[in-house]
Amino acid sequence: MGEPLNGETLIENGWFLEKNAQWPGQANALQVKEVLLHKKTKFQDLLVFASTNHGNVIVLDGVIQITERDEMSYQEMLAHLPLFSCEPTQVLIVGGGDGGILREVVKHSCVEKVTWCEIDGDVVDAAKQFMPSVAKAIGNPKVELLVGDGVAFAEKSKDNSFDVIIVDSSDPVGPAEKLFSKEFYVNAERILKPGGVICSQGECLWLNEELIATMVQDYGACFASAEYATIQVPTYPSGQIGAFMARKRGGKGEVSCRWPVREPKDMELRYYTPEMHAAAFALPAFLQRRLEAPSKKRRLAWQ
Amino acid sequence: MGEPLNGETLIENGWFLEKNAQWPGQANALQVKEVLLHKKTKFQDLLVFASTNHGNVIVLDGVIQITERDEMSYQEMLAHLPLFSCEPTQVLIVGGGDGGILREVVKHSCVEKVTWCEIDGDVVDAAKQFMPSVAKAIGNPKVELLVGDGVAFAEKSKDNSFDVIIVDSSDPVGPAEKLFSKEFYVNAERILKPGGVICSQGECLWLNEELIATMVQDYGACFASAEYATIQVPTYPSGQIGAFMARKRGGKGEVSCRWPVREPKDMELRYYTPEMHAAAFALPAFLQRRLEAPSKKRRLAWQ
Repeated sequence: MGEPLNGETLIENGWFLEKNAQWPGQANALQVKEVLLHKKTKFQDLLVFASTNHGNVIVLDGVIQITERDEMSYQEMLAHLPLFSCEPTQVLIVGGGDGGILREVVKHSCVEKVTWCEIDGDVVDAAKQFMPSVAKAIGNPKVELLVGDGVAFAEKSKDNSFDVIIVDSSDPVGPAEKLFSKEFYVNAERILKPGGVICSQGECLWLNEELIATMVQDYGACFASAEYATIQVPTYPSGQIGAFMARKRGGKGEVSCRWPVREPKDMELRYYTPEMHAAAFALPAFLQRRLEAPSKKRRLAWQ
Repeated sequence: MGEPLNGETLIENGWFLEKNAQWPGQANALQVKEVLLHKKTKFQDLLVFASTNHGNVIVLDGVIQITERDEMSYQEMLAHLPLFSCEPTQVLIVGGGDGGILREVVKHSCVEKVTWCEIDGDVVDAAKQFMPSVAKAIGNPKVELLVGDGVAFAEKSKDNSFDVIIVDSSDPVGPAEKLFSKEFYVNAERILKPGGVICSQGECLWLNEELIATMVQDYGACFASAEYATIQVPTYPSGQIGAFMARKRGGKGEVSCRWPVREPKDMELRYYTPEMHAAAFALPAFLQRRLEAPSKKRRLAWQ
């Protein structure tokens, strides 16, 4: 894919245009009021700008990660889809440097401890400074923040450690590349408790059909279930992103994550409802057919 | 809103940027290969361009109406949501100049006659020339094309004439403005048969929350049910548009349109499934709350 993009060079005539080789010929554009921060971190190009109509916006390697205006749909769904699919006490978050997933996780009173592994401390600092309503749970006493590599953390973690793992990563280009691998999911499955659930940023059904099929059919093969759920995010490419969800064998209830087993209470939710949870698993005909077709990849012997 | 936009002036450095006062500070951008047609019709500014990655694109008054790449989600949902909610023989289409809705309607063998009322014959001609896969049902022997005003047509039509009315309009600015009015829906209700269903382009839940509430609570008040269903369309503003659906009193079955009463057979569908039909009625928490809150408008005496 060449060099990571420099976010500021994507601003033309006062508009940020999210042109990218990952989605040729299309771009979301947001009008810029003011650039608030632009730096090279140890891992990526970090741009924060104030927009005219979408609040503050965080951009990594030229890709919009979050806007204050519509962040709730992604944060609420990626967090509450797995959390309401079981009764979690131990949660691992990989990525999610802006703290939005964390904000949703700590709303669950049953959760006793959140281990949060984010590779880039500069993103955490930027969120605290420029997106306080998103970052507000950073520092919550239930949370242990480890600035480091999630893939390495999963490798060294003990078996059966977590009820839920949430992977809030950027696209599979740059620092997040190794999170989109069979190896990561083999470890993720190992460190989940029986019946535990992993939920990962699962890319866009309009742009990444083959990657989604690989995740569901290949990465998901060692789990009891592997599914894709859809989320509307206006400021992501094509206005949509998915949650890839898989449940480890050995649980007592339903293997599918489609039906929530608990209900939200006093959580101030703006997007997630139990009905939205179930509906997110209904997929366009073309994708449903693709996921029902056998994987193009050879299954490994141990599966 | 000022003068209708000139589509070609929105092309900057080889990209069409859909800037518009209806959605300030945001714009979908598509890369342009070649402008194929640009003219002022009797009613609007019509631009057709070939894009680099989305096939041919039709733009009216500066707003993307359809791209060949993703047109199926809107066409299939706006047509099949009402058609599978009953057993139609007589169908009225208002608008839909590109012929895409028509293409879906004639897939239903139970439909005996389609009356198609499109105000702008130049759009029909452009679709036939530049979007033949969309326009392919124009000329079907079941179809009567009336080039004229849909509002006037509804006023003069007889009571109880149609099982289904589909309103495939542009935004409520320009020629489609009068389709977003109580008066139009009073006539639409009158010309529907008992238990018949109207399904209209219902705007975007991220941008038009108040208009959607007005449609459901005010325009829908004289119907047995009035609902909003969500459709993903990557190249529409915020990647989403809705179907406003209402069913006339006096039918025999369920009043809600949520549960399809027939199943697709050999229809070559790419987006619609019965599961997608039901799931489309699940709405984000913020919109669900807004639609459950009482209308801000005074109800008319006859309701």
